[in-house]
Amino acid sequence: MNVKELRISRILNSKSGKSVIIPIDHGIVMGNVEGLEDPLKILKQLIDTGIDGTLLSPGIGKISLDLFSSKDAPGRILTADIPLLSTVPGGSGEVVGHEIIADVEFALRYNFDIVKVLLPWGEREHVQMESVRVVSDLANECDRWNMPLMVEPVLWGEAIPKEKRNDPKIIEHASRMALEMGADILKIPYTGNKSEFKDLVNNLKVPVFILGGPKMDSIEGVLRVAKESIEAGAKGIVFGRNVWQNPKMKDLVRALKMIVHDNAEISNAMNNFNLLG
Amino acid sequence: MNVKELRISRILNSKSGKSVIIPIDHGIVMGNVEGLEDPLKILKQLIDTGIDGTLLSPGIGKISLDLFSSKDAPGRILTADIPLLSTVPGGSGEVVGHEIIADVEFALRYNFDIVKVLLPWGEREHVQMESVRVVSDLANECDRWNMPLMVEPVLWGEAIPKEKRNDPKIIEHASRMALEMGADILKIPYTGNKSEFKDLVNNLKVPVFILGGPKMDSIEGVLRVAKESIEAGAKGIVFGRNVWQNPKMKDLVRALKMIVHDNAEISNAMNNFNLLG
Amino acid sequence: MNVKELRISRILNSKSGKSVIIPIDHGIVMGNVEGLEDPLKILKQLIDTGIDGTLLSPGIGKISLDLFSSKDAPGRILTADIPLLSTVPGGSGEVVGHEIIADVEFALRYNFDIVKVLLPWGEREHVQMESVRVVSDLANECDRWNMPLMVEPVLWGEAIPKEKRNDPKIIEHASRMALEMGADILKIPYTGNKSEFKDLVNNLKVPVFILGGPKMDSIEGVLRVAKESIEAGAKGIVFGRNVWQNPKMKDLVRALKMIVHDNAEISNAMNNFNLLG
Amino acid sequence: MNVKELRISRILNSKSGKSVIIPIDHGIVMGNVEGLEDPLKILKQLIDTGIDGTLLSPGIGKISLDLFSSKDAPGRILTADIPLLSTVPGGSGEVVGHEIIADVEFALRYNFDIVKVLLPWGEREHVQMESVRVVSDLANECDRWNMPLMVEPVLWGEAIPKEKRNDPKIIEHASRMALEMGADILKIPYTGNKSEFKDLVNNLKVPVFILGGPKMDSIEGVLRVAKESIEAGAKGIVFGRNVWQNPKMKDLVRALKMIVHDNAEISNAMNNFNLLG
Amino acid sequence: MNVKELRISRILNSKSGKSVIIPIDHGIVMGNVEGLEDPLKILKQLIDTGIDGTLLSPGIGKISLDLFSSKDAPGRILTADIPLLSTVPGGSGEVVGHEIIADVEFALRYNFDIVKVLLPWGEREHVQMESVRVVSDLANECDRWNMPLMVEPVLWGEAIPKEKRNDPKIIEHASRMALEMGADILKIPYTGNKSEFKDLVNNLKVPVFILGGPKMDSIEGVLRVAKESIEAGAKGIVFGRNVWQNPKMKDLVRALKMIVHDNAEISNAMNNFNLLG
Repeated sequence: MNVKELRISRILNSKSGKSVIIPIDHGIVMGNVEGLEDPLKILKQLIDTGIDGTLLSPGIGKISLDLFSSKDAPGRILTADIPLLSTVPGGSGEVVGHEIIADVEFALRYNFDIVKVLLPWGEREHVQMESVRVVSDLANECDRWNMPLMVEPVLWGEAIPKEKRNDPKIIEHASRMALEMGADILKIPYTGNKSEFKDLVNNLKVPVFILGGPKMDSIEGVLRVAKESIEAGAKGIVFGRNVWQNPKMKDLVRALKMIVHDNAEISNAMNNFNLLG
Repeated sequence: MNVKELRISRILNSKSGKSVIIPIDHGIVMGNVEGLEDPLKILKQLIDTGIDGTLLSPGIGKISLDLFSSKDAPGRILTADIPLLSTVPGGSGEVVGHEIIADVEFALRYNFDIVKVLLPWGEREHVQMESVRVVSDLANECDRWNMPLMVEPVLWGEAIPKEKRNDPKIIEHASRMALEMGADILKIPYTGNKSEFKDLVNNLKVPVFILGGPKMDSIEGVLRVAKESIEAGAKGIVFGRNVWQNPKMKDLVRALKMIVHDNAEISNAMNNFNLLG
Repeated sequence: MNVKELRISRILNSKSGKSVIIPIDHGIVMGNVEGLEDPLKILKQLIDTGIDGTLLSPGIGKISLDLFSSKDAPGRILTADIPLLSTVPGGSGEVVGHEIIADVEFALRYNFDIVKVLLPWGEREHVQMESVRVVSDLANECDRWNMPLMVEPVLWGEAIPKEKRNDPKIIEHASRMALEMGADILKIPYTGNKSEFKDLVNNLKVPVFILGGPKMDSIEGVLRVAKESIEAGAKGIVFGRNVWQNPKMKDLVRALKMIVHDNAEISNAMNNFNLLG
Repeated sequence: MNVKELRISRILNSKSGKSVIIPIDHGIVMGNVEGLEDPLKILKQLIDTGIDGTLLSPGIGKISLDLFSSKDAPGRILTADIPLLSTVPGGSGEVVGHEIIADVEFALRYNFDIVKVLLPWGEREHVQMESVRVVSDLANECDRWNMPLMVEPVLWGEAIPKEKRNDPKIIEHASRMALEMGADILKIPYTGNKSEFKDLVNNLKVPVFILGGPKMDSIEGVLRVAKESIEAGAKGIVFGRNVWQNPKMKDLVRALKMIVHDNAEISNAMNNFNLLG
Repeated sequence: MNVKELRISRILNSKSGKSVIIPIDHGIVMGNVEGLEDPLKILKQLIDTGIDGTLLSPGIGKISLDLFSSKDAPGRILTADIPLLSTVPGGSGEVVGHEIIADVEFALRYNFDIVKVLLPWGEREHVQMESVRVVSDLANECDRWNMPLMVEPVLWGEAIPKEKRNDPKIIEHASRMALEMGADILKIPYTGNKSEFKDLVNNLKVPVFILGGPKMDSIEGVLRVAKESIEAGAKGIVFGRNVWQNPKMKDLVRALKMIVHDNAEISNAMNNFNLLG
């Protein structure tokens, strides 16, 4: 075990070795996003429910220390960059530009366990190169301090046609490029085919976490992504909007934990927490 | 809560908020000390028994990462200095000189939770000033990184007559001076009178940990120091030789946990783990 | 012998002084490239077959240390840059932009023997200047540390008409400019005429390695490039896709070694490893 | 495997995983020492005989690069400090003072595999603290670069009575303190009792190398130290004066290799190379 | 040829490859030394006579640039340290302390070809360690810039009895230790026996220059030291007081050049320049 692995162990359940991470860092690009208007309130509820880790922007990281006062509090992952989605706050669209907003020394000074960065693709060329630079700079600096870097490649840009943005082949390419650039952890979407995804996870070698993305149609769909990806070898899930935009947030988290840590069947988990219908 | 408190929480039991710390850093000044000849073996046994934290020299810190692979592993405190007790390895006597052996960047790079330093008193004048410098330098550097510094004032030097080395008044002076120099945590001896010690702890404000020192006469004596100091407000105990030089090490640790975390009576704890006679 | 030559000796066969290098760094620009989906599996097979060196991206460099645990393991060359071929992962086209992704301190910290960089030509003007800057920056920084820099000039850009991209004259110009910019080692294509190539190698003075490029038509063609270029004075070959995209990978590597190190005839090498037909 | 282990593998035989190291760095403290008047000549002979590694001062390191031009050349360990034995060149006596003479950046710039430092004990107090500082500074700086540090504790000083300088207990203390201070490799004397030494090696965890020290009485004695220490778990031997002050140097090295790498009996090794009588 | 060798070539006669260096740096420790009261006047005369190089303190280096305006002007060696001989200007005695007075960046900024440092022996202990530090620091810093360092070990201190200060054995030890510490060039006394000195020069490998030291009895004696040491393999001579304290300075320099560069016999050289009697 090296020091990066030791830090990563802070976001893993000590029995299952797996992880249910609920991020609340969306405000950094989305502003006052629905369901997360009061980020500390949501965070407190999530911590009470026993999540294994969360993602925090530097600002929320500074004001949320009280919620992590217990040794068994969830691990803390610093969202260190901002790929700006609009020049209008709360707006969306093509990435305007990509910048590091908190350096690794900030992460160390605030005792974060992991640093996380986005790697959007399909951007306009000069922005694309900014994204490459942001990820490379963080990878070099994190490595100097034994700080693990989680990289999340996303197919957001208009250079990728809408219908291709869930294309498993492109996701595989993007995951691999993030690995080659120095990711210590990958945060990627589940590609939908368990057997193929298992091969991908095997090939990538570093721990793979599954992102949730925009709100899915049903709770069952959310649980299915968790179930299948964990079975395919994923180390954990990182579900945000699908969790805290759901009125049954707490029970949903409990169901996710049952699936991720205890290998429960989807139906059992749903029954157990009254999530059917 | 600030970041130093957050880091300190890593060595506290999440229910009781108290701490049973078993240090294994004695080799840095004592060499191949009895009972600790195989430090990793002892450390593994202690971790299996559920201690809350340990003290490690930089060298042992580097080779023991595997033992801390679980999130609920004990917290890690870096012993960052060497007050050399003799120019002959394993020898003892007046402090020869005092040096920092691992800098705070080492502590950060290896993800230690706390840095610890000795502040011996009664030393020859030039050595005394080295000790002052070692503590001050670490206090300044730790603070830059929000890294808590545990300071352990000890009355070792010949300028303090043997019969005065347990003098509560001098211990109070020494504790206060360590606080004033910037200690974030104090590691001090229990002075023997619970009511007076309570006042001391109250006055010192920062978390106070109780050191064990040389082997005591009986297990009951060890447990009594723990019981009374915790009742007087100590945040935890740091017992080394009294623990791993005892053939009943594991049960002794369990009894200490029962006293420190569950407020057990000494007799109950001894009965529970067959430590009587 | 200077230190750069000492480091270069780590990728040379100790008897022949020549080198068979099989790179597996293609994922950094090509993503999940065919035949290299599981880079560590391929790397292990190549090492078992006795290659002299490999090229690794920073990410694969970090996770592949175990494969190099023996003193006679192949040398390690760090691919330090990314000339992005598309804003769509796995896509190809004009170079979008060119960035350093791992600095020389990373190479030293991970004990790489050599640093390698691309120098594409025919790019759009602003990208061309980025490429010039990337190569120059690495040349300066490598030199400070006695780290040899391998430069690979390539004629990829649209400013060079397709039919000119294998033009020996332009390759000679590009090789010379890379030398003048500070290359310690050159990685260039074989220009096809042994006598002319011998002159080129003589004129370039620094060690010249031959790149394989896209998959060739036949194994015999692959071996012929190796045979002729080594006879013309090349120090070694760097063949990737032509090796690990071939179903007879291991025997092909063995044949290349026989040609490069033992001066074997192509037909003998092919016979020896059943590569005919 | 981490990077330090990767670098250490450069001085290990790839089959046995063990190591025969012949140091030629004695001139840094002893001057024009007998048998080593022409260090490069001796070094060349040793390399021809197939040693696994050597120790070099910075000055000899700079002028001996040519001898290491082959990939299977021995590993290079930099002697980075000078504990001055006299103010008169070639003189001996108490250590006058202890200084670092080559920094870790020098080691990196010259591609050394390992850095080595002495830790003398029994020195006068102010010199003793210099020694502590020299070792600590190198340990911190080496660690920053993933450069392994070999520490050699020696009982040279007059504070240790002559008859105690081979005392296994003190050697055990000294070895342990070096480990705690951050040694990645230990270079210590064989204490003479195989079973006790095995325990010591087991407890120290990091690779242990055996020093030869002043010339022993017989070749058999030299081989016996090698045989017993390797059987007790030592990773290798570091024999200097006992090798190059012996007129049968080359055959002695061959015998040592046979014992260390091939587990040969002493008598067989002696017979094999005509070292009897 | 490496850069250090290139710089060294600046003080070598391009035909003979040998060198007649006349230093005028004595004022840095001796003050207004006899014969050198007007250093620039002497320097101009020496340059007119065709010396190959000189040694200059930083101060004289700054004000003497005009004298070096021609391409075939002598090479310039910077005297970078001051081993203070007395707290009274112009006084002599034990070395009071040893300091670097001009750093390597000064040498680069003023385009010096070589940096030179003294390494006195037999000093009081704390001064001896200062000398070790001065030489080590310059060796490390020079190496970073490819600047050759000339080290001059001298047996000045009272720890070495007067009658031992020309002892060839101690000079050999001192030369060797300077080499091991990183000298790129050695400046040492001729030990008096040509055959033994030849062995010494052979063993030291780096270029050896012969110092003149205090004024000798006769011009013939001066020429004899030059003749024999050059025949023994010395790269050149560095004679100061024996040259500019001699009323026949210019002819003496011409005679030295004839001996050093043209292999002339002593008698011929003396005849040629009317130096007999």
